Amino acid sequence: MSTAREAGRPGEEAILKAAIAVMAEHGYHGTSVRDIAERAGLSPAAMYYHFTSKQDVLATLMERGIERLLTRTRAALAEAGDAPEDRLSAIVEVQVLFHLESQAATLLGTTELRALEEPLRGKHKAKRLQQQRLFDQVIEEGIAQGVFTTSLPQEAARAIVVMCTGVAGWFSPRGKLSREQVVRHYQRLALDMVGAGPGDGGAGRGRVRGRRS
Amino acid sequence: MSTAREAGRPGEEAILKAAIAVMAEHGYHGTSVRDIAERAGLSPAAMYYHFTSKQDVLATLMERGIERLLTRTRAALAEAGDAPEDRLSAIVEVQVLFHLESQAATLLGTTELRALEEPLRGKHKAKRLQQQRLFDQVIEEGIAQGVFTTSLPQEAARAIVVMCTGVAGWFSPRGKLSREQVVRHYQRLALDMVGAGPGDGGAGRGRVRGRRS
Repeated sequence: MSTAREAGRPGEEAILKAAIAVMAEHGYHGTSVRDIAERAGLSPAAMYYHFTSKQDVLATLMERGIERLLTRTRAALAEAGDAPEDRLSAIVEVQVLFHLESQAATLLGTTELRALEEPLRGKHKAKRLQQQRLFDQVIEEGIAQGVFTTSLPQEAARAIVVMCTGVAGWFSPRGKLSREQVVRHYQRLALDMVGAGPGDGGAGRGRVRGRRS
Repeated sequence: MSTAREAGRPGEEAILKAAIAVMAEHGYHGTSVRDIAERAGLSPAAMYYHFTSKQDVLATLMERGIERLLTRTRAALAEAGDAPEDRLSAIVEVQVLFHLESQAATLLGTTELRALEEPLRGKHKAKRLQQQRLFDQVIEEGIAQGVFTTSLPQEAARAIVVMCTGVAGWFSPRGKLSREQVVRHYQRLALDMVGAGPGDGGAGRGRVRGRRS
């Protein structure tokens, strides 16, 4: 059921998918409406039935992406319980998996933000800031509860988001790490970055792999 | 004296500077040789005196960038002494400052890597890997000496590079943090990520700001 809401009209989906593939290769400015239509197996006229312009395609891709990320992050927080470590781990998982599930699309979101025209670019940036604020809040709550000890909560929050978003730039399904391993490693790194677990005699460190030497 | 080597011929420098500015706005594929020449105040013919093509301009920008970064990182390591914390802090400083000094150029290096044609792209990636290996080595040395305790040295090394490189995407000279503050914060975050200072009773945490509450 959950896919139905995201699916949209079939023609539209095929165009967006084609646009991601072509723009990932040639960039927004190196891609024409005709290129996208051809990749989708449609005529340019058929494409204009769904989208008013190449800019409209990009805007739709970017808006859907950030909306899905926000929705998933909020859902993860709603399910994560109260422990700050669990809440941070939950949103790190979403941030990493989201950027691994659709690497080409999310990389496009990073590299082609400048190609998005105003006022859409400003709106998109505001939504990214909302996403960042969710991380800020979780870390601030952890500090208020004495569970996180970093003296740099905002900087840690931003660095964690950048680090998790960055997986889209290097992850390879043929590499030595599975998606699940990347998630667990980044949860551990994020907890280290906020100074989680100073009161447990250092047991917090290396929790993912557990047995060290 | 050190600037002489980097300066190149004046016309060449003006073209590269113009190319960074124009490509930052319109992307590699959205930029023509004529656009670059115009921004540099030259005729296209004058530009072809210095570069064979737009691709040649991009390749020169990318190669100079990674070479300078490697040179500065190695120099920082040569001067940093033996303590793993100092060595990691030194290369974090280089990585952050390099990406803050020329934000537009380094962002271009990230967003337009796909526009670099083979075999240059492969060569560029190999040099990026050399840079990554310098971080890997510093962290591995720190672990071997018992100073760093992370169970995820390679992942921490990559995440630190991604985080430091990412400053080019968000830093603003009009923001609340100075470049120097960003450097100090990221040094602290990097040390947290490798689990530095577990034997100092937690004094390592928050060292940058020191007095907490």
